Formats: sequence, C-alpha cells, structure tokens
Amino acid sequence: MTLPDLLDEARALVDAELARRLAGDADDPGRLWEAMRYAVLGGGKRLRPALVLAAARAAGGTWEGALPAAAAVELLHAYTLVHDDLPAMDDDDERRGRPTVHVAFGEGTAILVGDALLTEAFAALAALGPRCAEAVAVLADRAGARWLLAGQARDLAGGATSLAELERMHAGKTGALFSAAAELGAIAAGAGADARARLRRYGMALGIAFQHADDLADGDHPRFAAEARRRLGELAADARAEIAPLGDPARPLAALIDWVAASAA
Amino acid sequence: MTLPDLLDEARALVDAELARRLAGDADDPGRLWEAMRYAVLGGGKRLRPALVLAAARAAGGTWEGALPAAAAVELLHAYTLVHDDLPAMDDDDERRGRPTVHVAFGEGTAILVGDALLTEAFAALAALGPRCAEAVAVLADRAGARWLLAGQARDLAGGATSLAELERMHAGKTGALFSAAAELGAIAAGAGADARARLRRYGMALGIAFQHADDLADGDHPRFAAEARRRLGELAADARAEIAPLGDPARPLAALIDWVAASAA
Repeated sequence: MTLPDLLDEARALVDAELARRLAGDADDPGRLWEAMRYAVLGGGKRLRPALVLAAARAAGGTWEGALPAAAAVELLHAYTLVHDDLPAMDDDDERRGRPTVHVAFGEGTAILVGDALLTEAFAALAALGPRCAEAVAVLADRAGARWLLAGQARDLAGGATSLAELERMHAGKTGALFSAAAELGAIAAGAGADARARLRRYGMALGIAFQHADDLADGDHPRFAAEARRRLGELAADARAEIAPLGDPARPLAALIDWVAASAA
Repeated sequence: MTLPDLLDEARALVDAELARRLAGDADDPGRLWEAMRYAVLGGGKRLRPALVLAAARAAGGTWEGALPAAAAVELLHAYTLVHDDLPAMDDDDERRGRPTVHVAFGEGTAILVGDALLTEAFAALAALGPRCAEAVAVLADRAGARWLLAGQARDLAGGATSLAELERMHAGKTGALFSAAAELGAIAAGAGADARARLRRYGMALGIAFQHADDLADGDHPRFAAEARRRLGELAADARAEIAPLGDPARPLAALIDWVAASAA
C-alpha cells in the first residue's frame, strides 16, 4: 500500500470510531456534545492516529487492537487545539477554514469542550483492558506538565532564542504526542521493551522533524531556518535508524518520515 | 475513630500523596508546576478523597490500596475549581482567601494548570494496575460530558427553574464526582458488583445532599429552600439504606451522611 492510500484508509477507520465515541447524549445542555463534534469531526489529516495504527503493525499487532489508542491520541490532539485557540492562549478565530470553537460556541463552552475531549481521550484507553495502565501512564506523561503542557507553558512564557530552545518547545508541543502515539501503538500490540523504546524515540524524532518542516513551509522562526533544515535531515536519519530493526512491517513508518523530510525540501 | 479524627487522618495521608505527585520538574517553564501546587496544596477539606478511602474500607479494602484513586479524585476536583474560576466561567477572583490561579498566574497558565491536573488525575489511576481500566472508565464517565461537564454546561446555559432541574445540575456538578469517589474506593478494594453499585448510589445521594446543604447554608437558590430541606432528608435516608448491608466497616460513611444532613439543620 502506498503511504497516501494507507493514510486514507486509517483516516476512514479513525473517523468512524471518533463519530461513534462522540455520538453523545440526545439531551445536550449548552450544546456541549455538538461543540465536541464540531471540534473533532471537522476534518484533519489524522496523522497522529495513523501513526498509532502503523506503529501497532510495525510491532506485530493489528489496527483493530490499536483503534482505541488511535482515537485517544486524536481526541487529545483535538483538545489541545481547542484550548490553544482560546483568547488567553493564541487567540485564533479560524481553524481549517471555519470559526474556532470559542468563536462558534462561546469561550466558556470551549473550555468545557477541551476538558471533555481530554477526558474522553483517557476513557478510550479503558478499552485496552489489561494494557490500560501502561497506556494511561504513557499518554498522561507525554500529554502532561512534563512534556506537552510544559511546551505550551514555555511558549506562553516567551519565544525561543536558540535552536536548542526552539527544539525543546517542539519536543513538548509536537514531539511528545507523536512519541506517545507510536508508543501506544506498541503497547496495544503487546510489544516488548526494545520495540516499544524504538517506537517511542522514532515518534519523538518524527514529531520534531514534522514541526521543523511545518515551520519551514510556513516561514516561521526564519532566523533558525538553515539550522532547522539541517536538523530535519538528522532527525529523519535518527528516526529511520530506530525502526530499521523492525523490518518489513515498519515500512509505512519509514515512508512517513521520508514524506515529512521531503515536504520541507 | 470519630468522623473528625478520620477526616484529619485521611487529609494528612492525601496531602502527603498530592505533594509527592506535584513535586514536578526542577526546571519549571512558565511556573506551571508552581501554579499546580498553588491550586492543589493550598488547603481544602479533602472530603472527596476521604470518601474514596472510607468507601474502600467499607468494601473490605485498605486506605493504602485506594490512595492513588483518592489522589486522582482530589486532582480532578482541583482542576474543576481552577477552570470554574476563569473569567469565561464564574469569574472568581478569590478562593479559600487567596487570589484564584488565573489572578495569581495569568489566564493562559490557569487553563494549562487545569489541563495538567486533569491529566495527572488519570496518571494517578495507572497505579491501580489491573484495576486501572475499570477505574479510568468510571472517572471518565462521571467527570466527562455526560455528568460533571454536562452539569457545568447546564449551569453556563442558564439557571434552574425547578427543583428537578436544580437537582440535575447538582447531580452533574457535585453528585457525579462523589459517586465516582465512592465507586473508585470500591474498585480499588476489588469489591463485587453489588457493593460497587451500592457505593456508587450512596456517593451520588451524598453529593446531591451535600450541595443542598451547601446551598441552604449559603442562602443560594432561596426559592427552593423548603423543598431542598425536604429532599436533603430523603437523600440522607437513601444513602443510609444503600450502605446498611455493608455493616460495621461502613460506619464512617453513615457518619458522613449524618454530618452532611445535620450541617443544614
């Protein structure tokens, strides 16, 4: 399967699972569930959940077994976008060509929507049964105040003055959830410690590379552009090296890092 | 042990566990961990975690085994207070005699603090190991968009026009987390389905009774005062009936509902 085909197939599966989880209550006080669906089901590449599924296969598991973890990661990503867009954070009025949640539903509801999606993310992991504890520990670590939220706090506190600082922010804001995605795929597949650690490090490198590529495409942080382009190449090489021992089942992961690296060329 | 002694002992244990969990990173960008500690460690009766511990004993378990669940419930409660106090929600400047988190640390940081405490709440449940999946499902259900956040959304959408509506709001905003607390105690204790359901229903009745008592003490919702006083008596009787079959180990839970009922006399 080519990478675009794989991403399309993963997106269809994940979108159906998300729609099922967000069907909600018929009685919807304050349009909370409607706003949750608006936040999550309005499109998106579903790159992070596709990474969960691809990592699960690379670790010898199936997409079906990893689907709850894939939904969890996308719900978590969606919550960060809703809260990031708030006036007290990035104060964005539009996302994916539509009004942001706080513009469409009000700021109080947007805060609740983010809280609800974060809660639903953990709820999804309960479906992993005996693997739930490991999965919760990984998602909470990477999405909590040591990684993702530390990155947000760093961003709020002021911009980066060196590439190292910028990369630390990228590691928190983007790398952490990519690393959680890949590691959750490994956990869902029942992978051993070595494969799990390889996929965690692959995810972190992929996430930081993805953010550098995004910055380069958007012209963000122009003073670090030359260094970021060099780092992107290094990170792609690191990511490829991590998954090389996993062999053929990891080929989609190799295609993913190649695609990210090429997107900034 | 008298109820005040039991609450004091539970509070000391829970406070130590919360301080341990919130020690955080030496490097604290944007003072995120400092603000998390400010939000959680600044006092509070710790009624909800005490309920987790008391329910665990009532179901044949130990305080030690239920401590992670107790910490989870208090972290979850603390996050709801931080987000509730935000300008777009209740817009409160003071809590427990000190500036609220958004006043002391800024609104953006307060949003992240709530997000981080919610994430840490689920992280705490990972310590329950094989019982994590059940615990996560219960906490996410009761703290999510079907219960707690539905109550918040209902409140945002406008006040109650009948006692039934008011009680529905109380069930979401207060009863849900009390019911989760009691049920999590049961889960940590490895209780059977009957004891677990009894403790869940006891917690819900206790929580709604607690909110009625609080309203009566504060003079809130005065038009429903007479009805609320009657309902408080009914809910206390319901709660006592639920735990009666659990016998002696449930005596602290009986004392707790008596104390709540008496506080509004």
